Amino acid sequence: MKRFLISALVLLVAGWSIAATHDEDGSRLWLRADSVNTAAAITGVKGTAMAELQTFWQGGPVTLKRQKGLAKDGYTIKSQNGKTVIAAASDAGLLYGAYHLLRLQQTGQGIASLDISEQPFYDLRILNHWDNPNGTVERGFAGRSIFLNPDPARMKMYGRANASVGINGTVLNNVNAKPEVLSTESLQKSKEIADLLRPYGIRVYLSINFASPIRIGGLQTADPLNADVVRWWKDKVNEIYRIIPDFGGFLVKANSEGEPGPQDFGRTHADGANMLADVLKPHDGVVMWRAFVYKPQSSDRANQAYEEFMPLDGQFRDNVIIQVKNGPIDFQPREPYSPLFTAMQKTPMMVEFQLTQEYLGAANHLVYLAPMWQEFFSFVKPASLRAMAGVANIGDNINWCGHHFAQANWYAFGRTAWNPSLTPQDIAEEWLEQTFSLSATATNSPLSTLCSQLIHVMLASREACVNYMMPLGLHHIFAGSHHYGPEPWYSPRGVRADWTPPYYHKADSIGLGFNRTLSGSANVKQYPAELCSLYNDINTCPENLLTWFHHVPWDHRMSSGRTFWDELCLKYDDGVREARHFLTVWDALQPYVDCQRFGEVQRKLRIQARDAEWWRDACLLYFQTFSHRPIPQDVEHPVHNLDEMMKFRIPISMYENPESGYTK
Amino acid sequence: MKRFLISALVLLVAGWSIAATHDEDGSRLWLRADSVNTAAAITGVKGTAMAELQTFWQGGPVTLKRQKGLAKDGYTIKSQNGKTVIAAASDAGLLYGAYHLLRLQQTGQGIASLDISEQPFYDLRILNHWDNPNGTVERGFAGRSIFLNPDPARMKMYGRANASVGINGTVLNNVNAKPEVLSTESLQKSKEIADLLRPYGIRVYLSINFASPIRIGGLQTADPLNADVVRWWKDKVNEIYRIIPDFGGFLVKANSEGEPGPQDFGRTHADGANMLADVLKPHDGVVMWRAFVYKPQSSDRANQAYEEFMPLDGQFRDNVIIQVKNGPIDFQPREPYSPLFTAMQKTPMMVEFQLTQEYLGAANHLVYLAPMWQEFFSFVKPASLRAMAGVANIGDNINWCGHHFAQANWYAFGRTAWNPSLTPQDIAEEWLEQTFSLSATATNSPLSTLCSQLIHVMLASREACVNYMMPLGLHHIFAGSHHYGPEPWYSPRGVRADWTPPYYHKADSIGLGFNRTLSGSANVKQYPAELCSLYNDINTCPENLLTWFHHVPWDHRMSSGRTFWDELCLKYDDGVREARHFLTVWDALQPYVDCQRFGEVQRKLRIQARDAEWWRDACLLYFQTFSHRPIPQDVEHPVHNLDEMMKFRIPISMYENPESGYTK
Repeated sequence: MKRFLISALVLLVAGWSIAATHDEDGSRLWLRADSVNTAAAITGVKGTAMAELQTFWQGGPVTLKRQKGLAKDGYTIKSQNGKTVIAAASDAGLLYGAYHLLRLQQTGQGIASLDISEQPFYDLRILNHWDNPNGTVERGFAGRSIFLNPDPARMKMYGRANASVGINGTVLNNVNAKPEVLSTESLQKSKEIADLLRPYGIRVYLSINFASPIRIGGLQTADPLNADVVRWWKDKVNEIYRIIPDFGGFLVKANSEGEPGPQDFGRTHADGANMLADVLKPHDGVVMWRAFVYKPQSSDRANQAYEEFMPLDGQFRDNVIIQVKNGPIDFQPREPYSPLFTAMQKTPMMVEFQLTQEYLGAANHLVYLAPMWQEFFSFVKPASLRAMAGVANIGDNINWCGHHFAQANWYAFGRTAWNPSLTPQDIAEEWLEQTFSLSATATNSPLSTLCSQLIHVMLASREACVNYMMPLGLHHIFAGSHHYGPEPWYSPRGVRADWTPPYYHKADSIGLGFNRTLSGSANVKQYPAELCSLYNDINTCPENLLTWFHHVPWDHRMSSGRTFWDELCLKYDDGVREARHFLTVWDALQPYVDCQRFGEVQRKLRIQARDAEWWRDACLLYFQTFSHRPIPQDVEHPVHNLDEMMKFRIPISMYENPESGYTK
Repeated sequence: MKRFLISALVLLVAGWSIAATHDEDGSRLWLRADSVNTAAAITGVKGTAMAELQTFWQGGPVTLKRQKGLAKDGYTIKSQNGKTVIAAASDAGLLYGAYHLLRLQQTGQGIASLDISEQPFYDLRILNHWDNPNGTVERGFAGRSIFLNPDPARMKMYGRANASVGINGTVLNNVNAKPEVLSTESLQKSKEIADLLRPYGIRVYLSINFASPIRIGGLQTADPLNADVVRWWKDKVNEIYRIIPDFGGFLVKANSEGEPGPQDFGRTHADGANMLADVLKPHDGVVMWRAFVYKPQSSDRANQAYEEFMPLDGQFRDNVIIQVKNGPIDFQPREPYSPLFTAMQKTPMMVEFQLTQEYLGAANHLVYLAPMWQEFFSFVKPASLRAMAGVANIGDNINWCGHHFAQANWYAFGRTAWNPSLTPQDIAEEWLEQTFSLSATATNSPLSTLCSQLIHVMLASREACVNYMMPLGLHHIFAGSHHYGPEPWYSPRGVRADWTPPYYHKADSIGLGFNRTLSGSANVKQYPAELCSLYNDINTCPENLLTWFHHVPWDHRMSSGRTFWDELCLKYDDGVREARHFLTVWDALQPYVDCQRFGEVQRKLRIQARDAEWWRDACLLYFQTFSHRPIPQDVEHPVHNLDEMMKFRIPISMYENPESGYTK
């Protein structure tokens, strides 16, 4: 009986007050409308758009019609006298129009008199799945691959979710590609997926291994200028299109982190990319060639993509797109934009954002990424890019993304790729209302205040993460291997220097940070002249990038009047306070959120608050061994011991989400 | 090389700035003066006083002289023209005078013109060691028993330390006494210790097992009115005094928590105590008979000592002292005073304080106890008591007490027993200056400010502990067995109710707390009329004892204007903030404290700050399952999960200090 009581108590914890609604598991994402009992009259073009409206539309009659002259994937919605007409040039356009209408319904917006005209900013809005053939997902924090044994119902939901936010392409496998992905057997599996996603306007793509002609073709070489190699690729591509007629193309990671590439045969990235582009061209396929390259010999990893790719500017076929990560290193909480974006003038480019939070707390931290993308687009004009890719945060967890709020990043990615001028706040508001039925415009005034606070939490979350992990331009000071948690000291014997934090933070008795000015690695020169001079001067360099570009003396005077060391302490502590504040806001929402999701998010926010302390303590105590300066009195002092934190290990691989952080 | 670097870093952590002084291990306690090179001229009575002055006194000539008419253990110190005279009626008095002089030297006070006259408030100032024959120490958090294989050097230091603060008695073994303590072999061991301590004016005492006549005497009974039993005790006592001529007497825990006692034979506490008093009387020995009794059947444990002992008031021999714990339950962070103290008018009584922090964070938390004793003496007039006992916090750890600041409680106990009107602040200041060479009157002004802050930390530490553990009158909600950390839910099947927290906190949907008013257990009636009516009314009951005396409704309005629930949350959070603040103050003292002790104390303060969070989170989340009220927005919200905290166990016994607290 006592045991029963204790169990009952535990159950009560997650919901001490009566929850407003029944439990939800997050599997329906932001598409939580129930099927209608009586279908509205939907007429016109048959297809997925019609089916969706028949199932979910609660309003008056809707006509779906084809109309030439509209942009690819674009649509118009006009309503008058209770009748609505969606017009588009394609099935996909009609589908996007239908989801637009359903979104208006779900967010409670007026639909009496609509005159909407929409078209996507980018033609290609694509997810990159880093899924391996054995079902693991590299940097996947939400379970195993949804493509391993694709469940039709799950694939349908995946298709609907993507289409509802305008995503129209998906790369099914990891950029660290196994050659076997091009085997006939594997292609048949991809065909199954392609068939399930086609109704939702989604084309499939594959990451390929550049050495495939050798590894599965039996050739002696994969030299892109070798006739046998070209023939092998031509045959393989023909086979792919026989199996998947609307196949989208290849994503290629070549000569990067040990992957094979054209340089292995004395050729350039352009030679490799163009060869593939030529064989894909007749099928309307594209090559997305990644610029994520760096070699251990270089004195500044941040310089290298530019150094390798700039000489090739203008040499790529028109169906090659160079896919560049937003920053020059690797998806850190904050990086400056990759200078290639403004430097390459004659080459189509696309940006690769990372939705999966490899460096941002995995599926344990609430970090809403739209503000990071907005920051990127304030430097790189959206129109200068050809497309947008997002490394997916999706797995076979019931809630898809591990953290309910990570769904917002999937959602925001699609919406941003459709329209980069949407504000992070607009997107957060529409996502929150659809996903949690929480609206800042609710008539319930306490609830409306709480919702505004929650929107603010989402908007502030990325900066908070920067603060408690890597403020003031710090980067790459995370744990080895799984990349979760702080390890600024990580530097084991035999590991290449540019995989260790000290290479990046360069802490010493003088100060902290990487001198990338003209007196250092000269990385600043890769930026336009105005930015170059701005970044080059420690007194004009934005403080949020200070240690990225400068080796900053501990006593450097900041704009706040504090020393750099004191400011660093303050930033870390700000991060901790912010993470705790997020929890406070969420806790207050308990009466308005279903028990299950409330409890699951609360548990994650508690981890986040504890992890924030861990990051602060580990980084400050470690850097203090160089700064020899006291932690200011007005910040909370570390409560963990450096030696114990340095011994701590999380026993997980790069395919798992840690159950929690530091546990000493 | 890398490994070496990492190790070097770790070493640096504890001392990022150059430490002011060489490392210290705390073994010298507050007696850190080095031996002088040239001994001063010490004349007069030979003995320990002379030896101590010859070794440590740096001033002018001192004469030690006997003088009749002075109180037992009292002394005078007079100095003029560089010459000092210490006069006393006994060797012990001279010794106390010598230590007084040395204390003035160590605290840098003027000694040019002294005219001091001192005498102890209590004749008996005694430590209770809860040491077992196998070397374990019950509730000992500083290693094993110092008496197991008494090291003469260590015993000498123990003697000096006690004498320097006026302690003149020590009970060598646990009140849960093994009968074997009275075996001839064991008595010979006690004699060795007595011989080593005698030069420091310390008499030894023993805890006895009331069933000894049966267990080691071979008798059929231990009935105190049985002639054979009396004879056995008489013979045993004679033996003891043959071996240890100045033996002090017995400490007895009888009919309590399973220990045998006179009630087993149909006799009363008075029968038992008086029999022992009679056999000790010819030797000038005393019986300290503990009133710590309670039975599982009673509806209020707090009532029971009174119920058992009040009927016996006036029936005890004059060499019996009833030893009563300061509070009616058991050494909680805050209790009202035990009502026996004001109720028993015709019986000599002594108070038993607990220096070892059984319920106050063991040797991990800095909790300075003098303010607790001062609070006790504001209710119980010192003159109403015969003596003061302190349950020792001493073990064979190099620093004696596990926590450097726990030494302050040993120090303060002696000083308070000598003079209960000394303020906690006076005592803290003289201890801190002697122990850490830290003085609030230092000429270095930043240091002097920091020292004042540290004094404040010591003075505030007990209330902080109350706040983060058991505010507003809460008590007995600690973990089972080892008593470290929160377990307000602890209630395993088969454990007697009065050993489980729910018996005490009685949380339910209405409120929290034990109704001890006239409508409840009527415990208030055991207090004098004025206090009774004060405590009985929820509106006049001091808020710091509110749930001790009342079952307080969650929405009860507190003097702050907040509801009781909100106030509870606030108090817990205050405790957390205070614990963090202690760490901040200590960190700032790093340049002024030797590396070793700085690092060791810092590590403990970090545990304390983390433990405070653990207590807050566990208690608030658990009580929230009853209150069904949200945690206020303006306090930090719990970052741990109740279900995980409820599963957490510390795998230690009651003889160990936990390495740290909650580690999820």
